[in-house]
Amino acid sequence: MSSAVSPLAPKRYPKMPKIEGVRIAAAEAGIKYRNRKDLMVMVFDEGTEAAGVFTRSKCPSAPVEFCRKNLPGGKARILVVNSGNANAFTGRRGRESTEVTARAAAKAVGASEGEVFLASTGVIGEPLDAGRFSHLLGELAKRAEPGAWEEAARAIMTTDTYPKLVTATARLGDAEVVINGIAKGAGMIAPDMATMLSFVATDAPIAAPVLQELLSKSTAKSFNTVTVDSDTSTSDTLMLFATGKAAARGAPRITKATDPRLSGFRRALGKLLKALALQVVRDGEGARKQIEITVSGAKSARSAKRIALSIANSPLVKTAVAGEDANWGRVVMAVGKAGEPAERDLLSIWFGDHRVAHEGERDPAYSEEQVSAYMKGDEIEICVDLGLGRGKATVWTCDLTKEYVAINGDYRS
Amino acid sequence: MSSAVSPLAPKRYPKMPKIEGVRIAAAEAGIKYRNRKDLMVMVFDEGTEAAGVFTRSKCPSAPVEFCRKNLPGGKARILVVNSGNANAFTGRRGRESTEVTARAAAKAVGASEGEVFLASTGVIGEPLDAGRFSHLLGELAKRAEPGAWEEAARAIMTTDTYPKLVTATARLGDAEVVINGIAKGAGMIAPDMATMLSFVATDAPIAAPVLQELLSKSTAKSFNTVTVDSDTSTSDTLMLFATGKAAARGAPRITKATDPRLSGFRRALGKLLKALALQVVRDGEGARKQIEITVSGAKSARSAKRIALSIANSPLVKTAVAGEDANWGRVVMAVGKAGEPAERDLLSIWFGDHRVAHEGERDPAYSEEQVSAYMKGDEIEICVDLGLGRGKATVWTCDLTKEYVAINGDYRS
Repeated sequence: MSSAVSPLAPKRYPKMPKIEGVRIAAAEAGIKYRNRKDLMVMVFDEGTEAAGVFTRSKCPSAPVEFCRKNLPGGKARILVVNSGNANAFTGRRGRESTEVTARAAAKAVGASEGEVFLASTGVIGEPLDAGRFSHLLGELAKRAEPGAWEEAARAIMTTDTYPKLVTATARLGDAEVVINGIAKGAGMIAPDMATMLSFVATDAPIAAPVLQELLSKSTAKSFNTVTVDSDTSTSDTLMLFATGKAAARGAPRITKATDPRLSGFRRALGKLLKALALQVVRDGEGARKQIEITVSGAKSARSAKRIALSIANSPLVKTAVAGEDANWGRVVMAVGKAGEPAERDLLSIWFGDHRVAHEGERDPAYSEEQVSAYMKGDEIEICVDLGLGRGKATVWTCDLTKEYVAINGDYRS
Repeated sequence: MSSAVSPLAPKRYPKMPKIEGVRIAAAEAGIKYRNRKDLMVMVFDEGTEAAGVFTRSKCPSAPVEFCRKNLPGGKARILVVNSGNANAFTGRRGRESTEVTARAAAKAVGASEGEVFLASTGVIGEPLDAGRFSHLLGELAKRAEPGAWEEAARAIMTTDTYPKLVTATARLGDAEVVINGIAKGAGMIAPDMATMLSFVATDAPIAAPVLQELLSKSTAKSFNTVTVDSDTSTSDTLMLFATGKAAARGAPRITKATDPRLSGFRRALGKLLKALALQVVRDGEGARKQIEITVSGAKSARSAKRIALSIANSPLVKTAVAGEDANWGRVVMAVGKAGEPAERDLLSIWFGDHRVAHEGERDPAYSEEQVSAYMKGDEIEICVDLGLGRGKATVWTCDLTKEYVAINGDYRS
């Protein structure tokens, strides 16, 4: 497996501010990796509200089932995340493992087990021995401190080549509130409801049902628009925690999703989730190029998104971009196979600003040379107009390179 | 692009018998390839009945639309196939090209344009200049002879590394009838109704509506169960021609699909189509292993097939097989993402005879060493039992190797 950092990695990581009411710690539990931290806890002050979205896989991991059970309570005091083992497809032993961990975590912060949230990422099918790390939780909770966001982002990495961190601020009433988010993921990425692991915290005083609505809607426009390899994970988890501490600085407590004062926060949260999701794509296994695919003129937004994902998940489109070829014939193929309304003779296709196909034929005006130069860049935009209606959608993916095959096929040989 | 023959190629090609009423010729038209034949005609005696199934792509090629138009007539006198250019997404010029070709083909055999069938395979979006080869058709029709099946199979190849030929016989009444078939395809293979190009001929006297029913049903169990890369072609065409010449040897003329005398022919046709489809998988771009995936215990056969295809099209499952790793965690993932009824804790998974997972957990009895040895073979069977119902399906695919990425991404670099 290559350890080189993705060429699409950010040039530098943001300095993450504190979120009042959130403390973080990480440790080396030796679950699978050596010489790196693989266990992370996020401790929340009393009164923290929680929201979450999870994988729609029919074979979800034990921690996903555990979180789903606690979510209706809407309260969080501690989040425990390990990397190296997904605790997925581990049957009865998987449930025992989450129970042991939850008990130790609840004790560590003096909370009930209903206020604990868990996530695991790594290999599927290996039993996760909670005894390896549950005894560490008390000490971790004690030494947790507000500044450890980058350490947290690194502790949850698996095949990621860089930690994913985004911070934002928003006006809420007369106060400024802070939102911090981290994510991990590089392969098995085709979010369906949520994605891989991502944790976001804010000091805004927002009630859990409102948080949930904000999160679900923002997910549809961020994580649910990215795909690396069309393979939806068993462990996708995205959670949002709100400590409410900004109330002391005058931020109003929000209890209705329709509250007009939410608009700034909603926008900031949406941008932050989108930025995290794009960081995941840019760290897609073997990725050398980011691809943005916009489909317009579809019968509906839903139809546009299906066609966009058909293009984004096509191995032939992805290998063509890897080969720096504006192979729009393969885009036509991917439109055609999507099963959605499309009319060949109305189709137009652009690579960047270059229209390569128009009304069902090659655009006679396009310059092969200019398009070839465009394809050498590391951010490629493909636009397709179907000419049928007003439905529109944009999704993001990365190219498919030999390195993806090496990462996922050579690890044993 | 590699020119090495697939390691899964047949050791030798079958000797193809004549089909009375069918004559074949091929030529170098220089459409794209140099120093190889790229144009093939199959000439049928008067009275030949025809059936066909075609891509369900919403962006079908011009020849597919042309064939669809002629199919209701049920009569064929000539088939013209070129490789190197798919005449797909070529708009008005694509239709002009099929018209010019059809006119020349009809003239070459003294038939009506309604008895002409056309197929093209190769690059998408390039106009196909019929002037390059339509003048050759008269001479080709004249020199066509019954023994040129292998030449025909070679003339329709694109990225194929070997020609695909299958022959079979069947009892029909008191006579023995012959069935010959050829196919091409290596990438952009995820048949949806039919697949790539395949042409089958028989001397059996079977009426067109009966042929059509036989072909549609057999396709569901042959070509529509294979996938190389999940990318459905714009040009998928499978046609079956029956010259009826075996009537002179005493074969009864069949005009009803329910005729009990059809059973032997039906079985032989089914086996032949399946053999051709498997040859396509075994020549999948970059393939080193054939993978057979059986899903049982599903709620319905349709559900079983969707789950089987979800496994077969998963890049992570395919790269794991390439790496000779029995990574059943990825099989669980692919079952989970299929969106079909599944219960994690009822799931069992086998690689060959080795049960690796049982009732939602790793099977404690399986030997890693034995499974590893099994994975070194070049024909891998994966079985999944869902434990829910009686639905069952089997599909075939190949592994995903760096060679696939090279073939589809490196061709310009």
